[in-house]
Amino acid sequence: MAHNIAILGASGYTGAETIRLLAGHSAMRIAALSAERKAGMDMAQVFPHLRHLDLPNLQKIEEINFSTVDLVFCALPHETSQAVIRGLPKSLKIVDMSADFRLSNPDDYKKWYGNPHSAVETQAEAIYGLTEFYRDDIRSARLVAGTGCNAATGQFALRPLISAGVIDLDDIILDLKCAVSGAGRSLKENLLHAELSEGYHAYAVGGVHRHLGEFDQEFSKVAGRPVHIQFTPHLIPANRGILATAYVKGEAQTVYQTLVAQYADEPFITMLPFGETPGTHHVRGSNFCHIGVVADRIDGRVIVIAALDNLTKGSGGQAVQNANLMLGYDETDGLMPVPLFP
Amino acid sequence: MAHNIAILGASGYTGAETIRLLAGHSAMRIAALSAERKAGMDMAQVFPHLRHLDLPNLQKIEEINFSTVDLVFCALPHETSQAVIRGLPKSLKIVDMSADFRLSNPDDYKKWYGNPHSAVETQAEAIYGLTEFYRDDIRSARLVAGTGCNAATGQFALRPLISAGVIDLDDIILDLKCAVSGAGRSLKENLLHAELSEGYHAYAVGGVHRHLGEFDQEFSKVAGRPVHIQFTPHLIPANRGILATAYVKGEAQTVYQTLVAQYADEPFITMLPFGETPGTHHVRGSNFCHIGVVADRIDGRVIVIAALDNLTKGSGGQAVQNANLMLGYDETDGLMPVPLFP
Amino acid sequence: MAHNIAILGASGYTGAETIRLLAGHSAMRIAALSAERKAGMDMAQVFPHLRHLDLPNLQKIEEINFSTVDLVFCALPHETSQAVIRGLPKSLKIVDMSADFRLSNPDDYKKWYGNPHSAVETQAEAIYGLTEFYRDDIRSARLVAGTGCNAATGQFALRPLISAGVIDLDDIILDLKCAVSGAGRSLKENLLHAELSEGYHAYAVGGVHRHLGEFDQEFSKVAGRPVHIQFTPHLIPANRGILATAYVKGEAQTVYQTLVAQYADEPFITMLPFGETPGTHHVRGSNFCHIGVVADRIDGRVIVIAALDNLTKGSGGQAVQNANLMLGYDETDGLMPVPLFP
Amino acid sequence: MAHNIAILGASGYTGAETIRLLAGHSAMRIAALSAERKAGMDMAQVFPHLRHLDLPNLQKIEEINFSTVDLVFCALPHETSQAVIRGLPKSLKIVDMSADFRLSNPDDYKKWYGNPHSAVETQAEAIYGLTEFYRDDIRSARLVAGTGCNAATGQFALRPLISAGVIDLDDIILDLKCAVSGAGRSLKENLLHAELSEGYHAYAVGGVHRHLGEFDQEFSKVAGRPVHIQFTPHLIPANRGILATAYVKGEAQTVYQTLVAQYADEPFITMLPFGETPGTHHVRGSNFCHIGVVADRIDGRVIVIAALDNLTKGSGGQAVQNANLMLGYDETDGLMPVPLFP
Repeated sequence: MAHNIAILGASGYTGAETIRLLAGHSAMRIAALSAERKAGMDMAQVFPHLRHLDLPNLQKIEEINFSTVDLVFCALPHETSQAVIRGLPKSLKIVDMSADFRLSNPDDYKKWYGNPHSAVETQAEAIYGLTEFYRDDIRSARLVAGTGCNAATGQFALRPLISAGVIDLDDIILDLKCAVSGAGRSLKENLLHAELSEGYHAYAVGGVHRHLGEFDQEFSKVAGRPVHIQFTPHLIPANRGILATAYVKGEAQTVYQTLVAQYADEPFITMLPFGETPGTHHVRGSNFCHIGVVADRIDGRVIVIAALDNLTKGSGGQAVQNANLMLGYDETDGLMPVPLFP
Repeated sequence: MAHNIAILGASGYTGAETIRLLAGHSAMRIAALSAERKAGMDMAQVFPHLRHLDLPNLQKIEEINFSTVDLVFCALPHETSQAVIRGLPKSLKIVDMSADFRLSNPDDYKKWYGNPHSAVETQAEAIYGLTEFYRDDIRSARLVAGTGCNAATGQFALRPLISAGVIDLDDIILDLKCAVSGAGRSLKENLLHAELSEGYHAYAVGGVHRHLGEFDQEFSKVAGRPVHIQFTPHLIPANRGILATAYVKGEAQTVYQTLVAQYADEPFITMLPFGETPGTHHVRGSNFCHIGVVADRIDGRVIVIAALDNLTKGSGGQAVQNANLMLGYDETDGLMPVPLFP
Repeated sequence: MAHNIAILGASGYTGAETIRLLAGHSAMRIAALSAERKAGMDMAQVFPHLRHLDLPNLQKIEEINFSTVDLVFCALPHETSQAVIRGLPKSLKIVDMSADFRLSNPDDYKKWYGNPHSAVETQAEAIYGLTEFYRDDIRSARLVAGTGCNAATGQFALRPLISAGVIDLDDIILDLKCAVSGAGRSLKENLLHAELSEGYHAYAVGGVHRHLGEFDQEFSKVAGRPVHIQFTPHLIPANRGILATAYVKGEAQTVYQTLVAQYADEPFITMLPFGETPGTHHVRGSNFCHIGVVADRIDGRVIVIAALDNLTKGSGGQAVQNANLMLGYDETDGLMPVPLFP
Repeated sequence: MAHNIAILGASGYTGAETIRLLAGHSAMRIAALSAERKAGMDMAQVFPHLRHLDLPNLQKIEEINFSTVDLVFCALPHETSQAVIRGLPKSLKIVDMSADFRLSNPDDYKKWYGNPHSAVETQAEAIYGLTEFYRDDIRSARLVAGTGCNAATGQFALRPLISAGVIDLDDIILDLKCAVSGAGRSLKENLLHAELSEGYHAYAVGGVHRHLGEFDQEFSKVAGRPVHIQFTPHLIPANRGILATAYVKGEAQTVYQTLVAQYADEPFITMLPFGETPGTHHVRGSNFCHIGVVADRIDGRVIVIAALDNLTKGSGGQAVQNANLMLGYDETDGLMPVPLFP
């Protein structure tokens, strides 16, 4: 068995991460890579760390012969993604890594992203790509919408607790710390080394970060009632990693055991011993998510902390994991690189 | 006017920071420096960045002639500090930067630090060194106990709100991000560059961090009733800075105006425009504390974020500020270096 | 005595550094700040770390009333700088921090910067701003051309040796390591935190870096014959600092004593004890340059290493030092902030 | 085919790196791990990033049953290593990663390491582990001495040039920049994040770094005459990576073609196009070494720059590569993780 793969938007970090992982896959073969502004370039110029791989040159999307492609990873910016995906052959399987197909209700899309959705009919067939909770749907899906990296981390910490109703649904705070690659390869002053290194700060404070659209959708769905959490992301001077510190109200052992039960058979979600907490350096470059639970000194208050690599489990690794399901591979194929420490 | 100063424990970061600031002071002169294990060494060997200053060599404490000293900055480890300070001449003014005299109740000291306090009578005369709230007491104090760096940051964000009763006193969460110099110059595996750089994690989770002793003491005092907050510190891969993200319940404008009123005349506490939030890189190396207030999307929830430099406003700068009051100088003398950015 | 200062190009790092230093100056007052694209903005928005200073808003250059200005610091990009400076009133004293007036021969300018010089007559009156070697000329100059930051560091290590003829003039290698702020605040992919942090590399290898124009000009001048060195700069994942490692052929003690004699009375150039070497972290944020000399195990080979802060002694600090001379202040006025460590 | 592996000294970075790579090996199985001070501990406590692997607990060396072990990776400190290896069963194959068996002449060992060698007879059978140049000897070796990480990098850049006599053998300068993990997990003040981050400096300047023993031995051997290079290492604020900038005298194209010919069939040594130079971030976490050659503006001067990951190609990866040869595996088995960027 082997499958041909195309990656659209291969000159960004998410594209590069997907290529890195596929290089270790048993049978997916990269057949085409696109990047509009860098079309014609050799990947060794765009990403010298991929120099040793035998990769096709970058093309424009319209130059790709999709008839020989089995599955497309779409690492394009949102808005662009919906326009491109709408035009792809219906026979193609697609894992989208943009924000375009995450929100099933087009009104929600408009609310959080500011524009009306231009591919509403395609949206209707999209499956939300949080593998551990949508595994069966993903297996048979044509289009899977990769989750936001923050949204994935927060859901790993909180979703089973909300689903089981073991915490107060009206008082959930998620204080999240994200490394800089989460912002992509875009040229912004605040992403320069000189601006970011040695400093850190919150951003999108007060409930305006777009990943709240996913939290609202998913948490309300599993709770069977509206659930709105507080969410404050912070930008940290590191390249990879998300650490999500969740403050919830409930009984600590119940919280812990609920998560333990949920993730008992998951290959990538690791529950730490009760009372221990994770660090981002221990999952760097891997598809693992480490979760710890600690009882606060105040009775009935619990802290749940989850750590993952935003480019791997938060994006490219999740995408490959979903593609494995869609194409019938072992779910962990290509996804077992050991974390890089130090 | 001029005063002779001794710094005990001058080979650590707090000692070095105090020297850095005093180098720009109008009239305090460094007359003696101590460091037990490095006694006899030139400061240029211990801290090459201080090489250009005309500083005395390091001595053992017992070698210092305190009769010509007016004020002592004590940058020793806790436990050591109480033993040394107990033995100093009663005529000396002292600014202690350890944890030894922060908790006025000896039982609290034992609870948080594990040992009985060995200088209970000296404790009785110590004034808590949070300048902006103990200014008058500090002016006439003989012994001032510098606050914890996390404790200072959290109090700048929360104390006026608790004092004024404008927030729910039973539901305060403080998620704090601290740079590595807060852990001092001690040789621990987890403080190595290779362990810390590019990674971050929570520590002392669940209400066990010692600075909670200060929060409990001070917040309960101003509230006139017990107040126990939740407090989770995180270690961030940067050298200087504390960012405290506080989650409170109250009315956002009331919260903001309470802080604005409190700090209107403070030279070092800056309220940002409503809705803006601070970054640690904008206070690095300075004695400033920037505070921002944002209303959450959920009614009645407010986020208060404070940023300062743990070695300056959180420790050495606070110490010099207090010494200025104790010796009759302008409170800002030596404390106006502009933040270093980038 | 007091003087009014304007800073053109105040939204870049060099401009910000000059403001930082002037905030501690005894008598220079900032009267005007320009930034074309950010005209109208408050400096607190552009550089929040300068928020506490009472600074004028940013203007376009043509809005500045130069009749009340005594001296202009020009922190504009090269090419722009020559056009602007040509048009300024002849009564103004000017410290330019661009590359435009460093090379006295217009042909050299064209060779290294690719375009003909558009202000040849203004070039003729420019004094090269390496304070320690042009002090008297600078005192009476109208226009001083700040040196390149790499060019300054290399000259501090090598110039006295070339001048004294104590090293082989045909075999000089300068391997230089520069922090990222040397590249300015420009939006380039390779300056992003995610691209630069945790990695390092050489650039402009083989003798093509523009600062070689300055080395050639100055070294040939003091040698009285052509001197062409090898120069390889490297980009290091840090925000501030230049470390220049020079490999020369000569007698180690002669080399050392030549430098010691040259810099004996210099307030900012510090010779380390023979055999010791400097680090950039020990001069960060200061106007100091530390120089060390070590004899190699191979007879007749010597390593000279110089460290300084590219934004301070390499740019803004040098500019203020020159302005002090031009306006009759003590040369160290505003320039004594202690290095920030850690 | 499968082989049982023991790793001695598994609580350091080199040990962890070897485990990381073996986790992806087709047939080597980790049967035993030792760490004296941490004996009894679970690897998940010592290195949480290895938590998902099914690893044996740490033991003391004397507790290991070597009768079921085929090959030992020895990641102990030098001096300790020779004492331990001397006592191991003669039937064991050994890849040593310490400095103890690198220098074939015991006098050289004493000169560079200060003590007489205590296992001279074992030294006699050791093969120097620079795979690309000792491949055949390594295949049949019982004991292979892993090279120094700096020594490997410098040799990749220079050895073929010295061997072919295409450069001046009396004038070779190697300016090397090493990341901090090269110094290991030892608790030293200058390796703390607060001391190292944002600063850099040279060390062991003047020809005293111990890896010069290897350069002298190997370069003299291939030249057939004594060759002594100048070597200056610098410590850079990054966790992984070595960048070696070599200054040589010769003809640039000849230099380039000599290297191209040497490495044409090497799986891990990549020659960049003439004029391009490598960066450490493009080999991070991989077993690749990238080499670039640039002609200087001065005729007859050439710059050769090599980059590799000190923990992988410079240590653990080299060790696995050698073990592959010794046990009959494909040389690249376990060694194809793609570099991690960003």
